Amino acid sequence: MNTAKLLLHCPDRAGIVTDITNFISVNNGNIIYLDQHVDHVENIFFMRIEWDLENFLIPNEKIQDYFDTLYARRYDITFRLYFSDYCPRMAIFVSKLSHCLYDILARYTAGEWKVEIPLIISNHGDLREVAERFGVPFHVFPITKENKEEQEDRELQLLQDNRVDFIVLARYMQVLSDRMIYKYPNKIINIHHSFLPAFVGAKPYHAAFERGVKIIGATSHYVSSALDAGPIIEQDIVRVTHKDTIPALITKGKDLEKIVLSRAVHKHIERKILAYKNKTVIFE
Amino acid sequence: MNTAKLLLHCPDRAGIVTDITNFISVNNGNIIYLDQHVDHVENIFFMRIEWDLENFLIPNEKIQDYFDTLYARRYDITFRLYFSDYCPRMAIFVSKLSHCLYDILARYTAGEWKVEIPLIISNHGDLREVAERFGVPFHVFPITKENKEEQEDRELQLLQDNRVDFIVLARYMQVLSDRMIYKYPNKIINIHHSFLPAFVGAKPYHAAFERGVKIIGATSHYVSSALDAGPIIEQDIVRVTHKDTIPALITKGKDLEKIVLSRAVHKHIERKILAYKNKTVIFE
Amino acid sequence: MNTAKLLLHCPDRAGIVTDITNFISVNNGNIIYLDQHVDHVENIFFMRIEWDLENFLIPNEKIQDYFDTLYARRYDITFRLYFSDYCPRMAIFVSKLSHCLYDILARYTAGEWKVEIPLIISNHGDLREVAERFGVPFHVFPITKENKEEQEDRELQLLQDNRVDFIVLARYMQVLSDRMIYKYPNKIINIHHSFLPAFVGAKPYHAAFERGVKIIGATSHYVSSALDAGPIIEQDIVRVTHKDTIPALITKGKDLEKIVLSRAVHKHIERKILAYKNKTVIFE
Amino acid sequence: MNTAKLLLHCPDRAGIVTDITNFISVNNGNIIYLDQHVDHVENIFFMRIEWDLENFLIPNEKIQDYFDTLYARRYDITFRLYFSDYCPRMAIFVSKLSHCLYDILARYTAGEWKVEIPLIISNHGDLREVAERFGVPFHVFPITKENKEEQEDRELQLLQDNRVDFIVLARYMQVLSDRMIYKYPNKIINIHHSFLPAFVGAKPYHAAFERGVKIIGATSHYVSSALDAGPIIEQDIVRVTHKDTIPALITKGKDLEKIVLSRAVHKHIERKILAYKNKTVIFE
Repeated sequence: MNTAKLLLHCPDRAGIVTDITNFISVNNGNIIYLDQHVDHVENIFFMRIEWDLENFLIPNEKIQDYFDTLYARRYDITFRLYFSDYCPRMAIFVSKLSHCLYDILARYTAGEWKVEIPLIISNHGDLREVAERFGVPFHVFPITKENKEEQEDRELQLLQDNRVDFIVLARYMQVLSDRMIYKYPNKIINIHHSFLPAFVGAKPYHAAFERGVKIIGATSHYVSSALDAGPIIEQDIVRVTHKDTIPALITKGKDLEKIVLSRAVHKHIERKILAYKNKTVIFE
Repeated sequence: MNTAKLLLHCPDRAGIVTDITNFISVNNGNIIYLDQHVDHVENIFFMRIEWDLENFLIPNEKIQDYFDTLYARRYDITFRLYFSDYCPRMAIFVSKLSHCLYDILARYTAGEWKVEIPLIISNHGDLREVAERFGVPFHVFPITKENKEEQEDRELQLLQDNRVDFIVLARYMQVLSDRMIYKYPNKIINIHHSFLPAFVGAKPYHAAFERGVKIIGATSHYVSSALDAGPIIEQDIVRVTHKDTIPALITKGKDLEKIVLSRAVHKHIERKILAYKNKTVIFE
Repeated sequence: MNTAKLLLHCPDRAGIVTDITNFISVNNGNIIYLDQHVDHVENIFFMRIEWDLENFLIPNEKIQDYFDTLYARRYDITFRLYFSDYCPRMAIFVSKLSHCLYDILARYTAGEWKVEIPLIISNHGDLREVAERFGVPFHVFPITKENKEEQEDRELQLLQDNRVDFIVLARYMQVLSDRMIYKYPNKIINIHHSFLPAFVGAKPYHAAFERGVKIIGATSHYVSSALDAGPIIEQDIVRVTHKDTIPALITKGKDLEKIVLSRAVHKHIERKILAYKNKTVIFE
Repeated sequence: MNTAKLLLHCPDRAGIVTDITNFISVNNGNIIYLDQHVDHVENIFFMRIEWDLENFLIPNEKIQDYFDTLYARRYDITFRLYFSDYCPRMAIFVSKLSHCLYDILARYTAGEWKVEIPLIISNHGDLREVAERFGVPFHVFPITKENKEEQEDRELQLLQDNRVDFIVLARYMQVLSDRMIYKYPNKIINIHHSFLPAFVGAKPYHAAFERGVKIIGATSHYVSSALDAGPIIEQDIVRVTHKDTIPALITKGKDLEKIVLSRAVHKHIERKILAYKNKTVIFE
């Protein structure tokens, strides 16, 4: 089934749901999913609506324009339109740890996700062998203070050449420059190895051990220019005890990290995330 | 804010969402909540919609009739209509264990739930003191094989006299007769002390200990005529280890039971549950 | 069965376990529980050992002295000795929220815990009625900047008169002075409504909403002079979504708070917690 | 550090802990881990003890004999002795699903586990490519009713030739014959895709969907001759809703399955599991 997915938000007003469902129905689109949410604090209306394109009267390439003209301007709507037959293109950034990379490549190879992975980028050569096992091109860009700008230029060029839609930082241990972040707004997914906002920054498992917490966590979020402070997509936790040493926390945490990151990537691919200000609306 | 809540299901067909949202909008109702679900296996459409009644043009007492005439017949819709200003009346059935009863009465007294509790019924006198602490009338109906029918008649009369809308079995250790269940279809909420369908019937903690499980659970469900087999509303679990004896399982389980039961009761009061066949759709 | 429980820690050295188990065995004590832990970072040995006193050759009142003389000095052991037939005395401090208080009093009244609760102290009169329902004396000490020292003096006197062993802050919304904390070192249990160290201080649910987290938590800990920074005893979390408003977070959080606090209190009563520096060892 | 790990159980009696810790101490072994458990229902004492071999006076090859002679006979102890410098050898059995296999091979390749994997056995050829990616020999034994005995003979020979210590069934969809199970008692680890004992047998996700549960689970257990009824090692769950179709349950379940299986394998490798009757004692 070919479908269109429309994610939108706008100031809340009576009649929006009716108008938009009407637009789809009168043009012979069968709505197969609708979920909406109103943030009564900000007074913002959010909606995700998906419909079968089979008998839809408006050709795919004109939907964007029609919706923009007929509704978006009237209701001050910000929206994104996606088609289910497009396969998004994703780049992976890694450093030295392999667990998240393996988890993503196993899903990719097994066909779990509708996504293309044209390339992996790393600041170290360590994981080249993993990439080769799965036949995905691997590019190394060692980064130093001096060459960071130049290397990122080359990375950006490579991403553009590969028509990359979004980026997954699979334990990439290098802060991206703002320039890079602005190029991919809410399109760079990071995994941080703590339940944010606890333990921002480096060595969260060491900090968790030091504090004596009884649960540790992992958080996937979109990257914003503030460190570990972008919109949170998914979090999960695992219980720990006084018996867990720092290496034990790291081992337990790895399982969390890979699952939490993969859940976030999956939702992103499925177009179930709408980021607004510094939060996400996650449709089910 | 006074609102109407409409829960419905019907065979899935294009145009339903549009028609129903239209019905509300053209009559000046502002939709403040809409969630829908399609069961593609059974091809059933489910919806919960809530709207502000302030400027709604149809008087409350006529909405049921109008909706029935205009839409329910056309789409073969089964629906229930609720008004937020009505306070549902709930009876509690208990036996000897107090933890669920205390949890419910504490919430009730603290004003957490919009509900009236006109009475507590028990087959034992043990918890009279608890009921008295909270000033709720307590009625004892000892049940034997011989007097079961007669006692249930008296209970049913009492429930009717008190205009009871739904019943909560807060660890009531007596099987209800079918007659009683049919009087309150999907209106009797039970808590079973296992993660159903594991450990149906008596002494689930003993069975869990015997089997050596590493998690135990609790399940709240609507009572149907098949034992512990009605539509599940809510479940939760807690980890256990080989160190947990049967009394330890019971202690851990009590906390689960009361929380899981109270979550289910709260959802029922908020009209967020739609039971269909032997399952529930839980709107958020 | 009357038992002795010994909790101890000391610099780690070979032979300690053997010596201590020997001490109990040669004196005809039957060990019914033994758990030990070594913190290899600090090189500290921790142990909890419990034995049946029935045939134990050393009289109860001399065990402390014998153990001190024979082992504590030799191994530089810090230890506490408890007898199962002593019923610890606990004071509850509350302000205006009743959910934790109800949960504790229901357990107390139902006989779940081996504890005496001679009194409840509050800085407000709101919960007097709850205390009266359960027949526990309720004392109000309104606190202002000006009278804080004087009021705490009166509270300390009252605690002493009632031979209170430990204090539970059941959502007591008033910071204790250091003087009070030093009087009850690792004997004041607080519940904080976040997964610490995230959201220290006031209004953590508001902060969680603002940050857009996908899980919220609760943390019980011993009170130290640094705000919300004492040794953590127990934590738990619950999932939330973008649909959860601040009142919804507060409602979900209340269930967490009361369960997490009661778990901590129960472990404290059972003598399963050994606080060391700013962490806890929790024996099972 | 080279260590010995001793796991034992015997009828509970006073003095055992003291005697065994004495045995290690007087022979200059430094105890680095000790955990014990008494099952008061069965009156069985369980212990796991680990000690540094550096200065231990008894040579490794004689410890088994000495312990047997000096203690096992006296206390009727059943025990197993392991040395940390031995690397256990594990075979993987798979069918067509790759997620558990990838998870195991990624951990293996990354060096997370101290284990050798000399071979993978399958009843289908589908996952040969995965095995080849990781350079592990892959053997296909298609099984029919007619050839089952003969094929299992060949498998047993292959396992023996490769000196395999234990077997992991990573979603192997073929019931093993009792003969095979008896050869590897409590040495075959299976993953079942439900929270046992709910949904024993085939198609548990379909059954879970049908029943309308709100949580699904996965269970790793040792294989016994009764289907899905062996000693449980580890379980975990994930929440589901009415929106989750059967394919959605399968997708959510896969993540559970691989994590729960890998946790069980890890504990087995670390010698932290003691199976007794139909249960496990899991040391931490």
